[in-house]
Amino acid sequence: MFPTDGFRALDRQECLRMLAKVPVGRVVYTRQALPAVLPINFSLDTDASVLLCTSPGSDLVRAIDGVVVAFEADEFNAATRSGWSVVVTGRAGVVTDRAEHERLTQTGPTSWMPLRDVVFVRIESEMVTGRELNGGLSTP
Amino acid sequence: MFPTDGFRALDRQECLRMLAKVPVGRVVYTRQALPAVLPINFSLDTDASVLLCTSPGSDLVRAIDGVVVAFEADEFNAATRSGWSVVVTGRAGVVTDRAEHERLTQTGPTSWMPLRDVVFVRIESEMVTGRELNGGLSTP
Repeated sequence: MFPTDGFRALDRQECLRMLAKVPVGRVVYTRQALPAVLPINFSLDTDASVLLCTSPGSDLVRAIDGVVVAFEADEFNAATRSGWSVVVTGRAGVVTDRAEHERLTQTGPTSWMPLRDVVFVRIESEMVTGRELNGGLSTP
Repeated sequence: MFPTDGFRALDRQECLRMLAKVPVGRVVYTRQALPAVLPINFSLDTDASVLLCTSPGSDLVRAIDGVVVAFEADEFNAATRSGWSVVVTGRAGVVTDRAEHERLTQTGPTSWMPLRDVVFVRIESEMVTGRELNGGLSTP
């Protein structure tokens, strides 16, 4: 049952299952000392890491390569005030191994932007948390 | 027309119009030195600031009161690979003025969680940026 505070914590497996259902998430990082957030399409690798596809010289790569970031995804229904959110926190890094890069050109995400060259960025799923908000309006 | 890199920057007014269309956004901040992100329902005040409704002693209030945060919202269509995203960056602060708090109990956002007491947090819209991704699949 849902606790009285309105939401239920999801375990790691539930989190990863929810994450696999949506095509877009948001990378959360720091840029010039300010909080920054970028929505981007992604996929999950078989080790549960988050994979992004971007251009080699992008601002994103410069900002997050080698840095701990958060990656968030969610779905909410305003009519029922219900939904879920998942956050993966871990170190991001450009995939530099050539064979790995080749594998990901076949199985990894495709950028929604037209790119001439691509690199893949992997976000390790070191911490995975999530919660589900149960629907229904309560007396405030 | 859309530039060849796939997206168009939105001006401040366009950003605020898009933001007004969705019920949920994400607060992006730092917690224990790590990037943190929390989806939450919100509304826009008449001065274009972002208003949140939360409990007085919440982790969120402790983390962001008086701090510069980012607030992000978006809508994406995976089938057409199109959508938009808007980020408001500015200082967050609990609304302490009693008359202002009263006004917001009538006109401000209502928490999706059952709360006994509420405080409102205002995020000043000091910086508002946004972009629109045009749809269509290009040759990779």
